[in-house]
Amino acid sequence: MTQVKKVLIDCDPGIDDALALALAHGSPELDVLGVTTVGGNVELAHTTDNALRLRDFLGMTAPVARGAGQPLVTEPINAPAVHGVAGLGEAQLAAARTELDPRHAVQLIIDTLGAAPGEVSLVATGPLTNIALAVRTEPRITEWAADFTIMGGSYTRGNRTPAAEFNVLADPDAAAVVFEAGWTTTMVGLDLTHQARATAEVRERFADLGRLEAELLTPCLDFYGRHRSYRELGPAIHDACAVAHLIDPSLITTVPARVDVETRGRFTTGMTVTDFDAADLNAAVATELDADRFWALLADSFRRASDGLPT
Amino acid sequence: MTQVKKVLIDCDPGIDDALALALAHGSPELDVLGVTTVGGNVELAHTTDNALRLRDFLGMTAPVARGAGQPLVTEPINAPAVHGVAGLGEAQLAAARTELDPRHAVQLIIDTLGAAPGEVSLVATGPLTNIALAVRTEPRITEWAADFTIMGGSYTRGNRTPAAEFNVLADPDAAAVVFEAGWTTTMVGLDLTHQARATAEVRERFADLGRLEAELLTPCLDFYGRHRSYRELGPAIHDACAVAHLIDPSLITTVPARVDVETRGRFTTGMTVTDFDAADLNAAVATELDADRFWALLADSFRRASDGLPT
Amino acid sequence: MTQVKKVLIDCDPGIDDALALALAHGSPELDVLGVTTVGGNVELAHTTDNALRLRDFLGMTAPVARGAGQPLVTEPINAPAVHGVAGLGEAQLAAARTELDPRHAVQLIIDTLGAAPGEVSLVATGPLTNIALAVRTEPRITEWAADFTIMGGSYTRGNRTPAAEFNVLADPDAAAVVFEAGWTTTMVGLDLTHQARATAEVRERFADLGRLEAELLTPCLDFYGRHRSYRELGPAIHDACAVAHLIDPSLITTVPARVDVETRGRFTTGMTVTDFDAADLNAAVATELDADRFWALLADSFRRASDGLPT
Amino acid sequence: MTQVKKVLIDCDPGIDDALALALAHGSPELDVLGVTTVGGNVELAHTTDNALRLRDFLGMTAPVARGAGQPLVTEPINAPAVHGVAGLGEAQLAAARTELDPRHAVQLIIDTLGAAPGEVSLVATGPLTNIALAVRTEPRITEWAADFTIMGGSYTRGNRTPAAEFNVLADPDAAAVVFEAGWTTTMVGLDLTHQARATAEVRERFADLGRLEAELLTPCLDFYGRHRSYRELGPAIHDACAVAHLIDPSLITTVPARVDVETRGRFTTGMTVTDFDAADLNAAVATELDADRFWALLADSFRRASDGLPT
Repeated sequence: MTQVKKVLIDCDPGIDDALALALAHGSPELDVLGVTTVGGNVELAHTTDNALRLRDFLGMTAPVARGAGQPLVTEPINAPAVHGVAGLGEAQLAAARTELDPRHAVQLIIDTLGAAPGEVSLVATGPLTNIALAVRTEPRITEWAADFTIMGGSYTRGNRTPAAEFNVLADPDAAAVVFEAGWTTTMVGLDLTHQARATAEVRERFADLGRLEAELLTPCLDFYGRHRSYRELGPAIHDACAVAHLIDPSLITTVPARVDVETRGRFTTGMTVTDFDAADLNAAVATELDADRFWALLADSFRRASDGLPT
Repeated sequence: MTQVKKVLIDCDPGIDDALALALAHGSPELDVLGVTTVGGNVELAHTTDNALRLRDFLGMTAPVARGAGQPLVTEPINAPAVHGVAGLGEAQLAAARTELDPRHAVQLIIDTLGAAPGEVSLVATGPLTNIALAVRTEPRITEWAADFTIMGGSYTRGNRTPAAEFNVLADPDAAAVVFEAGWTTTMVGLDLTHQARATAEVRERFADLGRLEAELLTPCLDFYGRHRSYRELGPAIHDACAVAHLIDPSLITTVPARVDVETRGRFTTGMTVTDFDAADLNAAVATELDADRFWALLADSFRRASDGLPT
Repeated sequence: MTQVKKVLIDCDPGIDDALALALAHGSPELDVLGVTTVGGNVELAHTTDNALRLRDFLGMTAPVARGAGQPLVTEPINAPAVHGVAGLGEAQLAAARTELDPRHAVQLIIDTLGAAPGEVSLVATGPLTNIALAVRTEPRITEWAADFTIMGGSYTRGNRTPAAEFNVLADPDAAAVVFEAGWTTTMVGLDLTHQARATAEVRERFADLGRLEAELLTPCLDFYGRHRSYRELGPAIHDACAVAHLIDPSLITTVPARVDVETRGRFTTGMTVTDFDAADLNAAVATELDADRFWALLADSFRRASDGLPT
Repeated sequence: MTQVKKVLIDCDPGIDDALALALAHGSPELDVLGVTTVGGNVELAHTTDNALRLRDFLGMTAPVARGAGQPLVTEPINAPAVHGVAGLGEAQLAAARTELDPRHAVQLIIDTLGAAPGEVSLVATGPLTNIALAVRTEPRITEWAADFTIMGGSYTRGNRTPAAEFNVLADPDAAAVVFEAGWTTTMVGLDLTHQARATAEVRERFADLGRLEAELLTPCLDFYGRHRSYRELGPAIHDACAVAHLIDPSLITTVPARVDVETRGRFTTGMTVTDFDAADLNAAVATELDADRFWALLADSFRRASDGLPT
């Protein structure tokens, strides 16, 4: 039997973050040790509230800690047109009944990774502000993390701008810090996640999932799928790809590369400039998704999450 | 019968520039009114000498004028590893017997376009220094040019760096000036030209072209094809695509877009940031090549050029 | 009787930081609640060790907490030529006998300011990394601080580069964050501190101060004064000016201004661009020092510090 | 007897340009070979028209050629609040009766310097666009010029922004090209020209100068002096300082330095970063003006210009 992976998830829920949390929670391969929040898809107050509501809704037990509401250096940007003003589309989860961890997200990250060096995987599905603050406050986290995976970036074109993907653009300086921190960042970027489109055909796999479907998946994905950028090909379930990579690395092909984050450009800030021929590698860049097995994994995990929903 | 298009070619020969000149000269659809040179693939002294030698070799009559040896603002870069130190691979054309036009390239461009407003197509297959200098010296050239086509840029990835194509990187400020000059720039970039690979199969079409083949095509393409970036898929005949677009626009699909040139990035300078959804369009971006008809056009034109070689 | 000001000092000792600590400790007007360290004049290991040694030497009781060893985004720079490799010139203070506070500097700053909102003055005499991390981790510190004073910047010319003063250059992004954080930063920059030159005449005021003179002032200032930039006019005791401003605001004239920190320049990064005519003020910029009273204050405070040295 | 210096003046009249032209014309030490215009203080159409009107008014015989209306790369800026919408304050000179030289300013510069290598001094009192275009079109002008003097820049603070002087800010890329062109640029910047304030006392020296005073000096200086930045200390006659330096180098102290022009800053673009300790010198930077002798020179030259006014 495979060993269960301990994982800490830094996120900005956000529709696809919500699905990533449901995936992680429903996967017996993962043990979620903590959830930390950051401003991104929507403002920090919403992402934090959403994380608490999702924990209660799903019946997760991991602590949730609030993180940074503003990027390392720049001004915040959000994406309410994609995720809805409150961040979860049309989903109306019950108000949170449980409390935030008293610690700041940065402290929870440092404490959790430091308590079990080499054992905890770190996944970030939002802007990288918390991770950068943690790296600068306690540089040893780059040694303590078992591995580090982000949803973010692209090696061809962006989504928020022609050059930049949203999560990296939302805090380019933090992304630069993180990629240069000395560990290997597994970059699950748009090139990969645009292969994970929740088309009508895919969504049939999620039919018959009870309250998970009715109260989370449907109101999230219906809203998400109406966004201009997703109407034609279906909404890309970005963040779940990063979590899926942890559950089953064989789902996603990665290629070693050097990734530098542009922070100075007039038109290119937030771009993850990816050099596959470089000598000084710092990243493993996701290139191909086994989409069929990916959706099968999601369906299985969502089924388990659905079965375990608290009443 | 189609009207003959008058064309002025600004170039930095360079192997693919040489092929572009041969293509233009061998095409009855085009009347080459002038050739201007710029530093780029190799230094200005070489690109100018090569232009003169090519004119003599091909029997062209257009004036050749020397242009800028240094970019508008930045330091020069060259590509001798791709084109050979003298710029034409292993080709050994006879020393030039004819003289340069006494005018500077910028003056020849201004004079040629100004003499027949609306009638002369401008094509640039090197760094855009001369064009930018001409735009700043005589802004009306943007109205005088019948149309303006460049080989340069990319809307996905670069070649000289992960983000930038060589011609634009070699003078990013000039490219920025040119794209913002008020005309529509037809950008024949790497996305298009990488569809024009002179594979072994393609090169069979050029067999039996006498001295053109023996003295120009073979020693150029053999050298070119040995470059690391071309070994696997065959050398891309970039510059000829831009000229081919003039001869037969139906060979290349273009899409309206906004192109901004990055001039400030740490890792992205020289990138042509291409927004297909923008409102303020300034470019027609080449996306798809009808490769079979393209090679047929080249074979025909080269045949004609070969038949007309001076002895 | 004047109320005693509570103060937290973030510093990178460093020769003039050492003198600033001695000044603060010897001033009955100040109650030093904490000392936090940052990499700057020398590396973090040295600045932290120096802070501990100085606490023991002077008999201070405030907790000392270690902070950031690396700037927010950029690579570290140091100034061993000015301060000596270990940071205190030729001073050889005894090894520290006391321990660091277990908290990170950022946490100590947040805790100390948060424990008494409106009551604690924050002074920073090194690069602003810790302050920026604290601002991003807990934005309310800008409301909690009674006031905020830095030694850093300049409104005319720099010292480490023609445009930039060392502390700001050493972490320009942090400085940008700090100036834009919503509080008023009192900037005691080079324009002011270059009026505080410890000439031979000034140093006579410090004669006869026993071990403080023999073990700290003399070996620090002798080394400091030999630096190229100080040889002619005498060493500028930068950091002590910022502390002196807290003790007696009448010593230093300040002018309201807008300060923006350049973070993108090729030649100007780290410059504090100071606009005295701006509408959106964010700073009080020190312009004139009452040097005679400043040196009298130092002499008095050093006398008191000397008298209280533990044995 | 001193040899007469041949000089070519590139300018953007502009009030102080007008005075610089009057100074040059009235100085037997100078022979003005040409006047070229550039957009700057006001738009090119106005600066060119003003140059023609001034030539007619003063009775100059040098050719006037129109130059660049737009900076090398950036967007134009002007200063109508300082110089008036038409550029000469309240002066109402008669419409030009003579014609422009048919050549572009860049060509006139190249032709004039190239016709007498080593003999012609080049002075620029506006944005450096024409000079940069000339340098890039014909790099040998840097060897041909006898010397090269600009009014522009500053080694402390700017005027248009806290960091940048107007002429350099108006075309920072051109300034960068010019300073890096391989010659020595004599930079007569704000640090110098702010010592040349046309106070009421100074203006008494210009009383009794007939039509020159009534039609040019008074309506120019009255307008100029009302500008916010000049009200307190009197208007600085910037451009005349650069011409005065040519007439009598002993009026102005210069110091060798390295000057780099910032082109990338958020807040510092257009700054002339001046390093007096650098090894790779490229400039002679004006630091001190002998103001009394400067005004005496102006009074003498204006007297001569006044006496020679055509009727």
